[in-house]
Amino acid sequence: MNERDLFLIGDILGFNPQVGRLVSMMNYARYTTLSAVAGLRVDELDYLHDPQSNSIGALLSHIAATEVGYQAATFYARDLNVEERHEWGAALELGERAKREIIGHELDYYLSRLQQVRAKTLDELGRREDQWLEEQTSFGNGQNVNNYFKWFHVFGHEINHRGQIRWLRTRATRRL
Amino acid sequence: MNERDLFLIGDILGFNPQVGRLVSMMNYARYTTLSAVAGLRVDELDYLHDPQSNSIGALLSHIAATEVGYQAATFYARDLNVEERHEWGAALELGERAKREIIGHELDYYLSRLQQVRAKTLDELGRREDQWLEEQTSFGNGQNVNNYFKWFHVFGHEINHRGQIRWLRTRATRRL
Repeated sequence: MNERDLFLIGDILGFNPQVGRLVSMMNYARYTTLSAVAGLRVDELDYLHDPQSNSIGALLSHIAATEVGYQAATFYARDLNVEERHEWGAALELGERAKREIIGHELDYYLSRLQQVRAKTLDELGRREDQWLEEQTSFGNGQNVNNYFKWFHVFGHEINHRGQIRWLRTRATRRL
Repeated sequence: MNERDLFLIGDILGFNPQVGRLVSMMNYARYTTLSAVAGLRVDELDYLHDPQSNSIGALLSHIAATEVGYQAATFYARDLNVEERHEWGAALELGERAKREIIGHELDYYLSRLQQVRAKTLDELGRREDQWLEEQTSFGNGQNVNNYFKWFHVFGHEINHRGQIRWLRTRATRRL
């Protein structure tokens, strides 16, 4: 990501015009997520505010896992396979399973996973035309959803949880 | 908003193509905000989780106030005027001032303000060409920001706080 263009939603070299605008928004959302967790220690990433809370680490994994799910849905028209469900199941579910399984990792562990998933997304999006964004699938209730929506939803979902991460960070880091 | 098209990012009658895609995303973000607060009582809208927390009512006002700020910036190339700062100052600031001034309102009060602000936004966006989204202003540090980014930021900011609202709602509504 070019930081000089961080606040421009527009053309990006290597992407169709509309896809580039989408990627601009994904890039900025990711930039703010990374800013929200910069410098966090393991105990802060594992911090549980109350029994219903997810840790920041679990939320970071959840953001990556959701992107993996939408990769499968939109690039390969399938659900997650057995290996992917094994790898990402706790992150997708959150709650108790995530509390048991997603714990004790350094920040770099989460950042590396986010980055690997995103690299694949950008590689796939770079090979698609704008028209692909208009392709629709059906929810079966008369409502349709297009690929543009699905990727809008991926970054919107990330921003939603980033809002929670910011809130949690304030509480996780003030313990002295 | 047409619920049938809720999951389609694309053309909207009355808007230029690119503006319509932006409005599609704004519409969906708003739909989820309204869902997140549906049925909340005054005491739940005023709920303060801890001394650093904002209430859900204050966050709803903050979402509307931010949109007012970006209306001024992008439609009229100015800052908020005295009347606007008087009306929206507490909502923009949040924190202690919001705790004192934004309290005791029914949900409809917040929804009505959100709706009034949004109606003006849609009216103004409907009179603009796609090219307007590309217009840039400078941060003065070599970084530029275009109108597309500014309105992306408005709905991203809303989603960020909606994430917090969802988190707070779970805690505000379980007191029995």
